[in-house]
Amino acid sequence: MTMEIRIMKNILDRNQNKADEVRNLLREKGVKMVNIISSPGAGKTTLLERTCEALGGKFSIGIIEGDVTTDRDAQRLKKYDIPIVVINTERGCHLDSHSISKALAVFDLDSLDILFVENVGNLICPSSFDLGEAFKLAVVSTAEGDDKPAKYPLLFSEARAVILNKTDLIPYTDFNIEAFIKDLSAINPRVPLFRISATKGDGLPGWFEWLEYQIKSSPAG
Amino acid sequence: MTMEIRIMKNILDRNQNKADEVRNLLREKGVKMVNIISSPGAGKTTLLERTCEALGGKFSIGIIEGDVTTDRDAQRLKKYDIPIVVINTERGCHLDSHSISKALAVFDLDSLDILFVENVGNLICPSSFDLGEAFKLAVVSTAEGDDKPAKYPLLFSEARAVILNKTDLIPYTDFNIEAFIKDLSAINPRVPLFRISATKGDGLPGWFEWLEYQIKSSPAG
Repeated sequence: MTMEIRIMKNILDRNQNKADEVRNLLREKGVKMVNIISSPGAGKTTLLERTCEALGGKFSIGIIEGDVTTDRDAQRLKKYDIPIVVINTERGCHLDSHSISKALAVFDLDSLDILFVENVGNLICPSSFDLGEAFKLAVVSTAEGDDKPAKYPLLFSEARAVILNKTDLIPYTDFNIEAFIKDLSAINPRVPLFRISATKGDGLPGWFEWLEYQIKSSPAG
Repeated sequence: MTMEIRIMKNILDRNQNKADEVRNLLREKGVKMVNIISSPGAGKTTLLERTCEALGGKFSIGIIEGDVTTDRDAQRLKKYDIPIVVINTERGCHLDSHSISKALAVFDLDSLDILFVENVGNLICPSSFDLGEAFKLAVVSTAEGDDKPAKYPLLFSEARAVILNKTDLIPYTDFNIEAFIKDLSAINPRVPLFRISATKGDGLPGWFEWLEYQIKSSPAG
C-alpha cells in the first residue's frame, strides 16, 4: 500500500510540473483554459454548444475533447468551425497535463482567447489532476440528485463556478435545491452557482456574462 | 509511459489474484456477489432500496457500499436491517478486490445468499477491476443520454445485465431508446435490458424475477 501511495505521489508530482509549464505558456499567450468536469451525461457538450453559439462571434474559441474511446462529442461540436483536438484516454479515467501539453501543440495559441477542456465524464480523478487551467468548472445535472457536492467534495471545493444543469427536469425528480445549496455552501461558500437548462436555454445569459468577465479580467493560464 | 503501463499491469495482476481468491471463497459459501456499476446519480441506491423491499423476505441480503467519502448511501439502506459495510475510497475512483476481501471478513458469509456491491459512481475504472463478483450489473439513467454504451463500451460489454433507469423522464429529454439499444446490441448482443423507473416502480417485476433466477441458478462467486 505504501508503495502505491508513493507511485501515486510521483505521478501527481510529474503531472503538477507539466501543469505549471502549461499554465505559464497559456499566460504568455493570453489564452484562458477552462477545465470542465462532470459525471457522464451531465451536459458538458450541450453547454459547450450553447456557449460557442453565444460567444463564438466575440472570442476565438478552441476545444480539447477528452473521451475514453470515441469522438462523438467532437462530432457534435464540428459545426462551429473551431479548432478541436480529441484526446482518447482508452481505459484512463481522467486527462493529465502531459496529454494537454501535446494537444496544445496543435493549436495556434496566438490567435486563441479561450480554450475549453471537456474532461472525461467522472467526478473523482479529474479533480486531482491539475491541467494548467485558469479554473475548473463543475457541471452537475439535477437528475443526478442533490447529494453530489457532499459526496464529491474535492471537485466542488476546487471549482471556481458550479453549473446546475437540467433545471427543467426538477418538477419530475425529487431534487431538493435547498439541500443542494446547503451542502455546496458548506464546501465552497462563495462559489457562483448558475442554474440552467442547456437544452431549453434557461439561465444561460448569466453564465455567458460571468464567463465573458472571466475571459477579460482574471489572469490567463 | 512504459513504466506507468507496467505499474498498471502489476496493480491489475495483484487485483486479479485477490479477486480469484474472493470468488473461490464466495462459491464455497454459496454467496452470489453482484458488482453494480453506474455514473453518479444513476439510481444504484434507489434500485437497492426497491430490491431489498421485494426480495428481503426471500433471501438473506448483504451490501457493500463504495463511496469516495461519505456513508450517505449506507444511511439510506439502514432501514432494511441488513448487514452493510462502507468502504470509503478517499480519492480512489473504484473499489478493488483487496478492499472487498477485507470487507467480507465483517459478514457472516454462511448466512448470506446475495451480496450487492454498490461500486463508486464511475463508468470507467470500476469496469477494469474484477472484485470476484458473480456478475457485473450496469445501471444507466435516461437523463445521461442515449450515447453511454458507445462511449463506455468496456462496462457494457462486461455486464451480464443492463438496467435503464428513470424511464419516467424520457418524455422530458431527447433520449432515443432505439439509438441506445442499437449501440448496446453492437457491444453486447444478447445482454438482458431492464427498462425501469426505480422511483415510480415501473418495470421492476421483470428485474426481480431475473435476479431471483440468477441467485438460484448461476454459479456463486
